Amino acid sequence: VGIHTLRHGSAFDQRGLPIEPEFGPRCGTVEEFLDRARPNIVVEITTLNPATGEPAISHIRAAFARSMHVITANKGPIVEFRFESIVMDGAPVFNLVRNNLPGCKIRGFTGVVNSTTNVVIQALENGRTLAEGIAEAQRIGVAEADAGYDIEGWDAAAKAAALANVLMNARLTPLDVDRKGIARLTPEKVAGLKKQGKRVRLVARARMVGEAVKLRVRAEVLDDTDILASVRGTSNILVLDTDLMGKVGTVELSPGVEQTAYGIFSDLVDIAKTL
Amino acid sequence: VGIHTLRHGSAFDQRGLPIEPEFGPRCGTVEEFLDRARPNIVVEITTLNPATGEPAISHIRAAFARSMHVITANKGPIVEFRFESIVMDGAPVFNLVRNNLPGCKIRGFTGVVNSTTNVVIQALENGRTLAEGIAEAQRIGVAEADAGYDIEGWDAAAKAAALANVLMNARLTPLDVDRKGIARLTPEKVAGLKKQGKRVRLVARARMVGEAVKLRVRAEVLDDTDILASVRGTSNILVLDTDLMGKVGTVELSPGVEQTAYGIFSDLVDIAKTL
Repeated sequence: VGIHTLRHGSAFDQRGLPIEPEFGPRCGTVEEFLDRARPNIVVEITTLNPATGEPAISHIRAAFARSMHVITANKGPIVEFRFESIVMDGAPVFNLVRNNLPGCKIRGFTGVVNSTTNVVIQALENGRTLAEGIAEAQRIGVAEADAGYDIEGWDAAAKAAALANVLMNARLTPLDVDRKGIARLTPEKVAGLKKQGKRVRLVARARMVGEAVKLRVRAEVLDDTDILASVRGTSNILVLDTDLMGKVGTVELSPGVEQTAYGIFSDLVDIAKTL
Repeated sequence: VGIHTLRHGSAFDQRGLPIEPEFGPRCGTVEEFLDRARPNIVVEITTLNPATGEPAISHIRAAFARSMHVITANKGPIVEFRFESIVMDGAPVFNLVRNNLPGCKIRGFTGVVNSTTNVVIQALENGRTLAEGIAEAQRIGVAEADAGYDIEGWDAAAKAAALANVLMNARLTPLDVDRKGIARLTPEKVAGLKKQGKRVRLVARARMVGEAVKLRVRAEVLDDTDILASVRGTSNILVLDTDLMGKVGTVELSPGVEQTAYGIFSDLVDIAKTL
């Protein structure tokens, strides 16, 4: 629907350009071009300044800012992107697969990856109310000011989608997750289950159904000897189901804010190694 | 106490050689030289064939075969050595620290790293005898023909020493581990503890006492909601106590012999990357 060149000017046709398009005057800026062409996908093939990565980086940024997909033939802008902290602070999850599980295919995962619901469920186990549990999670700094995202399972759903997209080549959003939070749990229900040797945890699960990845976030009733049930307070666990290495995972016990900072630091070191 | 050269011959003096030693005829082989000089430390500074790493590699092997320490100025023989499988099959333990915890100091660790004792304790929990538990561990292929090394805690002690030496710069052998096995456990004792909500696991622990690393292997009585107690059958767990990343670790659930093979494969890939 649009071509923008240095020498020939710019061409537009919302119905699709012909093989030999008619060029008009060149748009003053790439932004102006993108706003007029309004493409779904931007193909970026400018010549490269390898020292700065420009002008490709600015072009790609302008496209991303407009929610356009980008294909580039430029090596310059291929910058590193790291996000180890987003699931379990600095505990290796993405790095576990990338660095330590070469050749493994991830077939699914099971995790307790939301600290707020863990703290709240522990409060319920001790006979306190949901509101008291949330207040405690906020006091120790793991819950957002609006804890609704945690309680309703949105935080766990976002993490599950990120894990599925990166580790299982899925293309899912938190909205695609079969999600139910813990708002309906009561101290009575949790205490009753505890007496039967059962515990509740908000569990995120991924599995393959045919070629599709299915994600689910649920308050699950677990045997209290289950390793998922053993994760309390701010502790987290993620177990990956792999083809070659069986079930293998990472645990993080009682992390604080320093462990998120460490995740960012470890990403920094990782990128520094590639420079 | 000895110098061996290509051009000047060989010189020996058990009391220590002078600055200008007197050289005699050259020894026929490096082995002959080492056996006569009997040094504690061999300094290897031959000129290098970078294609083969020789003669340095043969010299170093001859020294190691005689339990002599080696210092080399040769890049050729610096081969890679990988041993990820020795503790938890292919579940990353050494690779966790090496690849994913940059800048972290390991201050200690806690682990359930011996599958045979896990299987045996589970048999005891179910009212069977130690001998029956051992037979089952042998049947599923996790126990050695002589399961004594597992039952007496030697396997866990060897793993603890390896972890401490590599991850904490210790220099310990299994003999340095404060070690007690599970031979004295009975079904009655284990069942009694189970009724009280307790479970027994053979736990390996490392901690710093001043500058020294102290290692302990013990059948510990744990709360049955403890994450260490949640590890059953052939499953293993190792939690590292780090300065920057807090308590972080690896779990491996119900591995089989394929997971040991995978550990060797992942080491192969790792070395291939350095070539």
